[in-house]
Amino acid sequence: MLPRTIEWDDERNVIKMVDQTLLPARLEVLECGDVDSLIKAIKEMKIRGAPALGVAGAFGVALATFNANSFEDVEEAARKLSTARPTAVNLSYGVSRAMQRVRAAKSLEEARRAALEEAKKMAEEDVATNRKIGEYGANLLEDDDNVLTICNAGKLACVDYGTALGVVRAAVEKGKRIRVFACETRPLNQGSRLTAFELLEDGIPVTLITDSMSGFVMQRRLVSKVIVGADRVVSDGFFNKIGTYSLAVLAKHHNIPFYVAAPLSSFDLEKRSGEVEIEIRSADELKFFCGVQIAPLDVDVYNPAFDFTPHELVTAFITEKGIFTPEELLELKRR
Amino acid sequence: MLPRTIEWDDERNVIKMVDQTLLPARLEVLECGDVDSLIKAIKEMKIRGAPALGVAGAFGVALATFNANSFEDVEEAARKLSTARPTAVNLSYGVSRAMQRVRAAKSLEEARRAALEEAKKMAEEDVATNRKIGEYGANLLEDDDNVLTICNAGKLACVDYGTALGVVRAAVEKGKRIRVFACETRPLNQGSRLTAFELLEDGIPVTLITDSMSGFVMQRRLVSKVIVGADRVVSDGFFNKIGTYSLAVLAKHHNIPFYVAAPLSSFDLEKRSGEVEIEIRSADELKFFCGVQIAPLDVDVYNPAFDFTPHELVTAFITEKGIFTPEELLELKRR
Repeated sequence: MLPRTIEWDDERNVIKMVDQTLLPARLEVLECGDVDSLIKAIKEMKIRGAPALGVAGAFGVALATFNANSFEDVEEAARKLSTARPTAVNLSYGVSRAMQRVRAAKSLEEARRAALEEAKKMAEEDVATNRKIGEYGANLLEDDDNVLTICNAGKLACVDYGTALGVVRAAVEKGKRIRVFACETRPLNQGSRLTAFELLEDGIPVTLITDSMSGFVMQRRLVSKVIVGADRVVSDGFFNKIGTYSLAVLAKHHNIPFYVAAPLSSFDLEKRSGEVEIEIRSADELKFFCGVQIAPLDVDVYNPAFDFTPHELVTAFITEKGIFTPEELLELKRR
Repeated sequence: MLPRTIEWDDERNVIKMVDQTLLPARLEVLECGDVDSLIKAIKEMKIRGAPALGVAGAFGVALATFNANSFEDVEEAARKLSTARPTAVNLSYGVSRAMQRVRAAKSLEEARRAALEEAKKMAEEDVATNRKIGEYGANLLEDDDNVLTICNAGKLACVDYGTALGVVRAAVEKGKRIRVFACETRPLNQGSRLTAFELLEDGIPVTLITDSMSGFVMQRRLVSKVIVGADRVVSDGFFNKIGTYSLAVLAKHHNIPFYVAAPLSSFDLEKRSGEVEIEIRSADELKFFCGVQIAPLDVDVYNPAFDFTPHELVTAFITEKGIFTPEELLELKRR
């Protein structure tokens, strides 16, 4: 059994996280005792996934209150933490939720209690939210559906259970036979390393493919649905792992339903896509693989970590409050 | 300067080939002195690319005549060789061209001379053919075009110059500014290892991306044309490296021209797609990378090496006889 992706150690007041860069070969728990080491872990993607980053942001603020000598120290740590990665909205959301509690506190002592309480509440909420997303989403799946997904929107992207994979888990719990086709998700292979791993742990059938096979498996009708997560949903579409947009276009071409499973904390409907920064990651992620050179060292590399998919390619969003078409979503916002 | 991808050593009567599995880190020339070691090299993709496989097939027959004690030995070697990989038509085409000469010979001595002559002729033809493909194709490219390609349809896929990359080379020789976006091409990374390498060798600007970024670079209008090679063109479409079909759908969605550059020896218009076997390669190609485990060892893997793209997604085929739309191609066939 996998431990929770991220949790607080009450005895030592440190954050404990599954180190996702070592899976599937090794399951190790990493400890972060200060905000700088947490930021490093986030940048190196030892912890990743929008919902998990939200909880990490809140626990990070709690950590800051334990290490701080003043409220100013906490504010400074919160600023650095909330911009450790720019695209997912959850990280800054988690930081600001905990910071609201910090700012309402009258002493650092009180701030510690309040921030930690809020972070733990967010962690519990995450699991409950994912269960609800799963419950709603499971109704969209039929027996013998083959679900294509990219990256890891599973328990390892959250505290537990998962968003896109939570929908699969809930359908399986209801007795439906579901197989997942996992895109390996270059360049960091979250699909092969994490999604394949956590589904096998739960005994859910999974077939691993390269990202480039997604069109072919749709053409051959080997997949019947696509379900992905989201790093940020804005008014004109959503951001998610690079490759998601290609899947959406391919699904449209093949008339295959394309669903986005995400908690409402990933929704940022006041913003438009042009206002969101897409993180560009290091060229080395494409030049090296596990330390081995696989491309000329002097080649130009373009390595955006996310892409943008416009709403017209989305069949529906699966949230903890129900299933919404993009139109319904914008209608809700206007109310 | 790269040597020819494949050539005959007249002094020692062996085949010399650039070992493509070691690039870009090491440029080594591999020698094959018998058909079994050639078949092994083909299966391990130390030599690959439809045109290069055609020439390898012919040189392989020559090699067989040098090692054989009887015509029956040569026939046996030719049978094994022509099925070493199933999807590209060129391998069996190269074998049968050389075998025609063998069968017309009155002695093994004469068969040796004839097979070798035919193989060398095919090698020279390949270079001349690619130059002509380049000449025709260059007219399709404009100054400042950014050309997306997948896999390696370059000099390393041929004897020299290349098909898809031959078009780029010819355009650059005419003074046009062209940049290539190279999809890394999972799971064996021919894009990062070979395409990026040979373009940099020639000083042609190249940007490396993951296969999953192809939709995004089209959405952002970072690419203006797609040019790919082909392993086999049939009456209803063409086979090429897995991922090609996704690129074709994405290009259609973004209204970006999609060209296939291939010699007529890759055309097999008497066949339909259903009659062509798509090679399924080892699961280990997705479970390991350079020997490092990147997926659970017991995960199910689907690893087709090629996919099929129907003619309606192709803007035009670029051949040594000119540029043909799919309709024109089928019209030519009917004549």
